[in-house]
Amino acid sequence: MSVSSLAAASGEREAPFYRSVGNECGLFEQAFRQRLPLLLKGPTGCGKTRFVHHMAARLGKPLYTVACHDDLTAADLTGRYLLQGGETRWVDGPLTRAVREGGICYLDEVVEARKDVSVVLHPLTDDRRLLPLERTGELLEAPDDFMLVVSYNPGYQHILKSLKPSTRQRFVAMAFDFPPPGVERDIIARESGLAAERCAALVNLAASLRAMKGQDLEEGVSTRLLVYCATLIQGGMPILEAARATLVEPLSDDVDVQDGLLEAIRATFG
Amino acid sequence: MSVSSLAAASGEREAPFYRSVGNECGLFEQAFRQRLPLLLKGPTGCGKTRFVHHMAARLGKPLYTVACHDDLTAADLTGRYLLQGGETRWVDGPLTRAVREGGICYLDEVVEARKDVSVVLHPLTDDRRLLPLERTGELLEAPDDFMLVVSYNPGYQHILKSLKPSTRQRFVAMAFDFPPPGVERDIIARESGLAAERCAALVNLAASLRAMKGQDLEEGVSTRLLVYCATLIQGGMPILEAARATLVEPLSDDVDVQDGLLEAIRATFG
Amino acid sequence: MSVSSLAAASGEREAPFYRSVGNECGLFEQAFRQRLPLLLKGPTGCGKTRFVHHMAARLGKPLYTVACHDDLTAADLTGRYLLQGGETRWVDGPLTRAVREGGICYLDEVVEARKDVSVVLHPLTDDRRLLPLERTGELLEAPDDFMLVVSYNPGYQHILKSLKPSTRQRFVAMAFDFPPPGVERDIIARESGLAAERCAALVNLAASLRAMKGQDLEEGVSTRLLVYCATLIQGGMPILEAARATLVEPLSDDVDVQDGLLEAIRATFG
Amino acid sequence: MSVSSLAAASGEREAPFYRSVGNECGLFEQAFRQRLPLLLKGPTGCGKTRFVHHMAARLGKPLYTVACHDDLTAADLTGRYLLQGGETRWVDGPLTRAVREGGICYLDEVVEARKDVSVVLHPLTDDRRLLPLERTGELLEAPDDFMLVVSYNPGYQHILKSLKPSTRQRFVAMAFDFPPPGVERDIIARESGLAAERCAALVNLAASLRAMKGQDLEEGVSTRLLVYCATLIQGGMPILEAARATLVEPLSDDVDVQDGLLEAIRATFG
Amino acid sequence: MSVSSLAAASGEREAPFYRSVGNECGLFEQAFRQRLPLLLKGPTGCGKTRFVHHMAARLGKPLYTVACHDDLTAADLTGRYLLQGGETRWVDGPLTRAVREGGICYLDEVVEARKDVSVVLHPLTDDRRLLPLERTGELLEAPDDFMLVVSYNPGYQHILKSLKPSTRQRFVAMAFDFPPPGVERDIIARESGLAAERCAALVNLAASLRAMKGQDLEEGVSTRLLVYCATLIQGGMPILEAARATLVEPLSDDVDVQDGLLEAIRATFG
Amino acid sequence: MSVSSLAAASGEREAPFYRSVGNECGLFEQAFRQRLPLLLKGPTGCGKTRFVHHMAARLGKPLYTVACHDDLTAADLTGRYLLQGGETRWVDGPLTRAVREGGICYLDEVVEARKDVSVVLHPLTDDRRLLPLERTGELLEAPDDFMLVVSYNPGYQHILKSLKPSTRQRFVAMAFDFPPPGVERDIIARESGLAAERCAALVNLAASLRAMKGQDLEEGVSTRLLVYCATLIQGGMPILEAARATLVEPLSDDVDVQDGLLEAIRATFG
Repeated sequence: MSVSSLAAASGEREAPFYRSVGNECGLFEQAFRQRLPLLLKGPTGCGKTRFVHHMAARLGKPLYTVACHDDLTAADLTGRYLLQGGETRWVDGPLTRAVREGGICYLDEVVEARKDVSVVLHPLTDDRRLLPLERTGELLEAPDDFMLVVSYNPGYQHILKSLKPSTRQRFVAMAFDFPPPGVERDIIARESGLAAERCAALVNLAASLRAMKGQDLEEGVSTRLLVYCATLIQGGMPILEAARATLVEPLSDDVDVQDGLLEAIRATFG
Repeated sequence: MSVSSLAAASGEREAPFYRSVGNECGLFEQAFRQRLPLLLKGPTGCGKTRFVHHMAARLGKPLYTVACHDDLTAADLTGRYLLQGGETRWVDGPLTRAVREGGICYLDEVVEARKDVSVVLHPLTDDRRLLPLERTGELLEAPDDFMLVVSYNPGYQHILKSLKPSTRQRFVAMAFDFPPPGVERDIIARESGLAAERCAALVNLAASLRAMKGQDLEEGVSTRLLVYCATLIQGGMPILEAARATLVEPLSDDVDVQDGLLEAIRATFG
Repeated sequence: MSVSSLAAASGEREAPFYRSVGNECGLFEQAFRQRLPLLLKGPTGCGKTRFVHHMAARLGKPLYTVACHDDLTAADLTGRYLLQGGETRWVDGPLTRAVREGGICYLDEVVEARKDVSVVLHPLTDDRRLLPLERTGELLEAPDDFMLVVSYNPGYQHILKSLKPSTRQRFVAMAFDFPPPGVERDIIARESGLAAERCAALVNLAASLRAMKGQDLEEGVSTRLLVYCATLIQGGMPILEAARATLVEPLSDDVDVQDGLLEAIRATFG
Repeated sequence: MSVSSLAAASGEREAPFYRSVGNECGLFEQAFRQRLPLLLKGPTGCGKTRFVHHMAARLGKPLYTVACHDDLTAADLTGRYLLQGGETRWVDGPLTRAVREGGICYLDEVVEARKDVSVVLHPLTDDRRLLPLERTGELLEAPDDFMLVVSYNPGYQHILKSLKPSTRQRFVAMAFDFPPPGVERDIIARESGLAAERCAALVNLAASLRAMKGQDLEEGVSTRLLVYCATLIQGGMPILEAARATLVEPLSDDVDVQDGLLEAIRATFG
Repeated sequence: MSVSSLAAASGEREAPFYRSVGNECGLFEQAFRQRLPLLLKGPTGCGKTRFVHHMAARLGKPLYTVACHDDLTAADLTGRYLLQGGETRWVDGPLTRAVREGGICYLDEVVEARKDVSVVLHPLTDDRRLLPLERTGELLEAPDDFMLVVSYNPGYQHILKSLKPSTRQRFVAMAFDFPPPGVERDIIARESGLAAERCAALVNLAASLRAMKGQDLEEGVSTRLLVYCATLIQGGMPILEAARATLVEPLSDDVDVQDGLLEAIRATFG
Repeated sequence: MSVSSLAAASGEREAPFYRSVGNECGLFEQAFRQRLPLLLKGPTGCGKTRFVHHMAARLGKPLYTVACHDDLTAADLTGRYLLQGGETRWVDGPLTRAVREGGICYLDEVVEARKDVSVVLHPLTDDRRLLPLERTGELLEAPDDFMLVVSYNPGYQHILKSLKPSTRQRFVAMAFDFPPPGVERDIIARESGLAAERCAALVNLAASLRAMKGQDLEEGVSTRLLVYCATLIQGGMPILEAARATLVEPLSDDVDVQDGLLEAIRATFG
């Protein structure tokens, strides 16, 4: 399977279900058409990644997703010379691939990456839309259907890990949050197969659990965990047991915090 | 012996003895069937690793165990190009192996690993269940019988070493603790060959020693050390001598703490 | 596409629009003719990069731009031996290219680079104008039409990242700031296609937003973001929505700061 | 001389003299027979290394000793691919050698090693006794006559360098201290050739010097240094001169501490 | 162009203009003849580098200049094996070159270099004057016409970056400062072509600006910047504009400090 | 010139002049004969290195000197595989050379080296006197005429750079200081050719300058600098000028400290 088939496989997959909340799809499309880079901000598990998958499928463009991390360097994005059969061969990274052939490159949690990624993001995010590959001597001009999307979670930025203003100010930006109750209920029901009214109860519960964020919890419960919970219930597990495994243990190791979460759960389902 | 035989050898080994305490086997099986990743939390030596071995044997799946550490990188999990005979050859890592052929991949003490492991964990732990191998250009889709299990010990997390919420919230989670007295007695007796009533005395002793945790001891005495102690006693060593070598010296270097432990031991056996 | 075509492509591009504010073009030309290196200081997105592009086109010289970052080393600028076909081949970096063939080398945000870049900057910025390439054994003398330009943003220097006096004092320097209102209005209108009077309102707004810098904002809103905003409005997006996506979300994650920004926006357009 | 001859040479050397103090030989033998890993704790130069050499010779097993240090990694213990004649060849490390062929592997001052050694210690120290070699794809099962012994000095542990409870609790442990006076006298006499009654005086002196530990000295004087002192005296050097060179200068650079030591020496020999 | 031609080219260049201030030339010559290493201390841009160039030309010796930096290692000075055509070939570094063929090796800002340079400096700076090349197995004895010169700026030493006494005390040392007014005037006039009396005014200005050092400025204005200023004035630029670009902006980003500098400039030229 | 000729060249050089102060030669010879490792402690430039050179020549043994530094690793001492002509070839380091062929290995400022040198020092400094070469699979036994000598300067140890007690206690140790006046005078006269009575005045001066150590100076003036001073005077330089270049500038950059030094110099010679 070649590198190009990697993106294709990704592009060919059926557009994942996504329930729009505001005008996020419109802003994404405008940014795509105006060739502006996009920054998504929002908490863990609120649907940013799925939104990008949805939009890529809707626009019919291949999607290259990169989960950024502490050791991700510019070369991981642009490509490298690999030694094969005694000969060095250049292998495009996901960003180069997207620039060369068109498509959306999505850098998830971009603040985690090493600082040298700015060397490739800056010329791609000004009016030149260029990707210089020093190693191969190429200067790629991004086609009209190339789009750069990055995301990060403002909830746990710290001093050493934040986007420099000189980078931030190159993006159109959009804030995400958990979907409103009705939408979240439908998402859970669709993903887990659990009846909508039982999902609605989980969404109510999520509201109380999310209210504990900040004081006791680093992050509120994500839509993903609600889907997990509904899946286990639908699979036949008792509600309290499923809730403990998906809405309590993954959120905290602190016994007092867990007791608070369990109390809220029992108040809803007990 | 090839890489594939490594997992096979592991898979073929007889299912290790495991005494269930609650519904942990049921939750593991549900997670396996629903294709949800699982997080095990609990203290040192309480049986997490053995539980995973037991479940892998019970489900008839090969098991790939990785003891994570400070320098473990994503490439240690996914694979590397090795130079052999002037030709580079790709060698799958244990995670890739498990995704390619099905099976359970168990990352023990996952918080110890380098941050770039998130790059492989995230796409494997959302609904796509994908493992992108940038180096080979492959995008592997996990088969239904692939399962990812990770563990960590909440007892000694510190700031620099904790699971990010964006990672934690991708797992169904389960807390482990030392087994209840009757179960622990049976485990010790079975492993050491020592008579059950003498093992019961060791379990009683463990309760007093574990009560010292937090104030004086970083960790309570593990079931493993109780098995060691019973083994030495069964081998003919005087009880106090065996207890010093297995329940005192391995737990602390502090003379006062050691005196406290010895006092508890003498109170039980003296 | 070879390395030389990289610069050429850059040099052949039509001179980008640039509205002069003071005598910056005159000073640049004098420095070029007197063979003096130039340092540009100024905030994010005020037009430093575009100014250099403009001057390179005006002087008809190829331009080599390097976005500096934490891991950029002297070798990234001068070149490297690459292994190809079992033979090592020297490949010039962008600085060497500019010295060898003439042209302007622009190091954007030079303080971000590793300290060893001083090894190449120092002999190039005294009267010798030499570039020693230890690896190839060459000692290149810069031709008359070589010019070194570096930039940085005095707004977010910290102790570990500042230009040593022994480096700074080798440059003729020039401070940049956002363009005066009339000029900025014209720039926005030209780039976005939005009517000049609507752009004037955006420039007025920018003044109030920039006044918040320091107390609440790390950086004032850039001309680039104003162009983004005008582009989205011109594309049909409601003004408040466009302003939120370009003048609020990219500037801050703090709800209070965002409220302050939104208030100023509504006071102008509401 | 091949790698295998390295251990052999070590195994064939005559059993070094060792005077047992308590039941340390019995505990070592039990641990060896029960296939339990062993942890030795004790101050510098009290005889831990010699004890392990003695036991290896007594049990007739080859011994692989590794002095651990800050940069020792798992690969230093397990082995590496080396490039030879254009072909990579796997070379076993000392731990792999001991597992493959049987024998005792002794990791001296194990807390100094890099954290990734836990990846090889953990599966070797639970009931599976396995050594996975990811690089070669092998999963070695330790034979009955393999034993792992590690040591460390509790006297100078600090926060960054301590054994994690999850590692410590995998070992049977034993504390070492300087030998009792009669034994130490015999050791010194045997090693240096000095008459026993003169050695007895040195042992008396050691008691006073060791009493200064903690307040003035980081470590008490070791048996090794007493042997050095006796050796120089036996070689004809005046007592005070020999004592200064072996019992004062090696222990401290502080003039006041040295004066204290010299006073104690003169009180004994003056 | 080969490595040897690098030094030659440097040696053949015409002796740069240098106006002696005290007996610095005599001390340099004595040190050269007595085969003693020399340490030059002084502020940025006061002429240390030019002095060394001047003396090298005067003594008719090739000069090897190395601008030291944070990542400069001993191997950068001594040489390396490079892989070429499948064969490793040793390539002398600049220090080895100077020792092998005679000449002056000048390490500019030596305190910036990595600590392992001491391994080559120490044996070269005691009476043996040896350069051991461990990698090639050579032990080079420096010829009579080899001289080592190092420099640093005492003005911005900090704790982590200072010369160890064991290194400092191996050098004859000399302090440099800006030249006295008449000399500096002549230097500026000669370099810029500006009339001497106009240069004298610049030197007077420099005195007031240098008086601000310490309180407001990290470094006083260098002779180099005065030459830049005179060059721009000579090229037709208005005095105040030239002074801002060369004597204000390169020295400080602080508005208050800049105002102070401008006031002094206007007081002289306004 | 091969590696072996490196040591030979060193061994063949005529024994350098050394004036014994106490019984240091006797202690060195005893340690050599008893096969005990030796630790030399003392300030910069007091003659430790020359003493070792002298003793090596006197004993007729080759000497391998290594100036230790922050990046010196065990492999720098033991050796490495180098790639040559497509084949890896083992090249002995200086320590291995000394062990293999007999001779003295001198590690100057050993505390500067990386921590992994302990892996080679420990087995060489206990009664086994072994050097294990893991990479070649050799276990070298040191011959009777091998001796390990290390040195360090207790004057500037800090917490991160000190010898662990487990390493220190493996050495016979000796403290060095500047030679007594008569001896130092003779050394200076012999090295510089200056008349003895003029050297005596320099030694007197050194006493006053050394008295300033601690309060104002990090290190007292070394014998080496006194030799430099006498050399310049003998070469015809005025005393005050020579003293400034050798006894003032190399010792301090602080103007007040320099004034204090100059005052002492003028009081002696003025």
